[in-house]
Amino acid sequence: MSQKTFNIASPEKRIVPFLQEKIDNLTKPKGSLGRLEELALQIGTIQQTLTPTLTKPQHIIFGGDHGIVVEGVSYSPAEVTPQMVFNFMEGGAGINFLTRQHGFGIKVVDSGINYDFTGLEGRLIDLKVGKGTRNYLHEAAMTREEYELCLERGASVVDQCHEEGSNIVSFGEMGIGNTSSSSMWMTCLTGIDLEKCVGAGSGFDSEGVKRKYNILKQSLDNYKGDGSVEDVLSYFGGYEMVMAVGGMLRAAELKMVILIDGFIMTNCVLAASKLYPEVLEYCIFGHQGDEIGHKLVLDYLCAKPLLFFDLRLGEGTGAVCAYPLVESAVRMINEMSTFKHAKVTKYFE
Amino acid sequence: MSQKTFNIASPEKRIVPFLQEKIDNLTKPKGSLGRLEELALQIGTIQQTLTPTLTKPQHIIFGGDHGIVVEGVSYSPAEVTPQMVFNFMEGGAGINFLTRQHGFGIKVVDSGINYDFTGLEGRLIDLKVGKGTRNYLHEAAMTREEYELCLERGASVVDQCHEEGSNIVSFGEMGIGNTSSSSMWMTCLTGIDLEKCVGAGSGFDSEGVKRKYNILKQSLDNYKGDGSVEDVLSYFGGYEMVMAVGGMLRAAELKMVILIDGFIMTNCVLAASKLYPEVLEYCIFGHQGDEIGHKLVLDYLCAKPLLFFDLRLGEGTGAVCAYPLVESAVRMINEMSTFKHAKVTKYFE
Repeated sequence: MSQKTFNIASPEKRIVPFLQEKIDNLTKPKGSLGRLEELALQIGTIQQTLTPTLTKPQHIIFGGDHGIVVEGVSYSPAEVTPQMVFNFMEGGAGINFLTRQHGFGIKVVDSGINYDFTGLEGRLIDLKVGKGTRNYLHEAAMTREEYELCLERGASVVDQCHEEGSNIVSFGEMGIGNTSSSSMWMTCLTGIDLEKCVGAGSGFDSEGVKRKYNILKQSLDNYKGDGSVEDVLSYFGGYEMVMAVGGMLRAAELKMVILIDGFIMTNCVLAASKLYPEVLEYCIFGHQGDEIGHKLVLDYLCAKPLLFFDLRLGEGTGAVCAYPLVESAVRMINEMSTFKHAKVTKYFE
Repeated sequence: MSQKTFNIASPEKRIVPFLQEKIDNLTKPKGSLGRLEELALQIGTIQQTLTPTLTKPQHIIFGGDHGIVVEGVSYSPAEVTPQMVFNFMEGGAGINFLTRQHGFGIKVVDSGINYDFTGLEGRLIDLKVGKGTRNYLHEAAMTREEYELCLERGASVVDQCHEEGSNIVSFGEMGIGNTSSSSMWMTCLTGIDLEKCVGAGSGFDSEGVKRKYNILKQSLDNYKGDGSVEDVLSYFGGYEMVMAVGGMLRAAELKMVILIDGFIMTNCVLAASKLYPEVLEYCIFGHQGDEIGHKLVLDYLCAKPLLFFDLRLGEGTGAVCAYPLVESAVRMINEMSTFKHAKVTKYFE
């Protein structure tokens, strides 16, 4: 089996002082546009230009089912995964009003949903690896071959966005049970206690969280793998999550800006960064959610999310909702006058 | 002298459970769109409809100069106030890229700038009350007549927006020295120690903040007024700030949604709410900034800002930057499918 590799470089930093000089000469007290200035610096560095642009933003939702759900780790029944795919297609889901509002294209991918879709040909991207993963309480969720396939297929969706002219892509997911997989990845890859990585998901009360924790603790105890990133990802992963990892790595390889959603997508970036740390330099974190471990994993990654909006829907809503703030940063550096041009006294140096 | 009064009612609450029911039947776990759900509830209540809309958003910038600036309370020279007005007119300032991005109209008002503008007729709204306020280290910044005039003139600008079809209006300011006036209003109206109300403004270091504090402390000691809201506002206020108060009160009277910017505009809402507490129910707070007292005054008002973006530019940037989040909330309640319509299992009740 050949292993999928990526060629990801850290963005060249020689441009940074030139970007900073440009930003400091805009008609405002130095630093007074705060996070917008940081974003402009990051995007200008990724794109290696003093006039960054955002072209054809696209949002990718990977969907997949999880074998572990039979153990009762999710408040929501598994049937919701395919139902929501139809809802995405009809444009009625949470993510849809956001992609419409911000002019995003949307690609919905069947990564491994336990349902035979008909009538969605040419609309739903069929990259199904299996009809849901296996139950990792007892066995690996996926084979290593399936894992490699997911990385490749996830990357291929980003290739398609890139060919269509996108230089910014955001990631989301739909998969009942995938906060559990995220918690497992998180504890294995960061060393943070499992208890701190497990939260309410789509709506457990504290009793429900306790039951979920017990199942996941038992799964962790049963795990006899080698603890390598690849092994952890394939043992506990969802197809949709490994595809997102592949997509993020390909986006970084293509020097695209990557917009990150909530708890699940943050754990996908965590996983991606354990394979290729440079991926983080391409990421903008849209949102810090309620899910208890989300703050911890963001802190672990030294990530500064843009929004604190108590979202816990998934689908990528926390990424796309934050997009206009990213656009504001790009407009700032391109559209504001300089002190010299506007004949304003440079009142802060 | 007749006193300007406003007729501001608290929005009728009978619609709240109907709005909540609509929001809870959208295809998402209950509450999972967090702050967007809160905003939709607030706007639906203000507008008394299950299908709220945002029409012709407009941004008003009031500009004015401050007599206290001769004491060295600002890092920036006073000449920057009129220079920035020209920059607003040319579209090169921080606020301009944001209003363009989000489709806002913009009204720039000369409330009392110490400069004779020429060549801006029909573009700059001339409501000049004086060429800068007096120095409140020694005397009242404005007369009670000027104060009343400011309330009326501020209200008239909002009237114009309303006549043009706006149902949402945001407020910003330009006025070198106006963080000082804001600190004075804040300490007098909340009882919070002056020291906690004074910050860096456009860029003082800690020495500069100390000097600024000393001047303001002396001004407070010299003040012999009756401590009424009207007296505090006119003694320490800026023309642009009292106009903003008048504008906010008129917007609430007209049941418009009010978008609030940073430290200065938050203190204007504080002042407005001391006259008419109901104004707060119409307000959405865009941003919590760096200025040291801003968090304290927001907490005092029980306000939950949308963004934490380290902005300290003023002009209304923190309000307009947050606008797309408000629009997202309105789209959510209007555009998302219900569980029943989308045939999705209602997985969270």
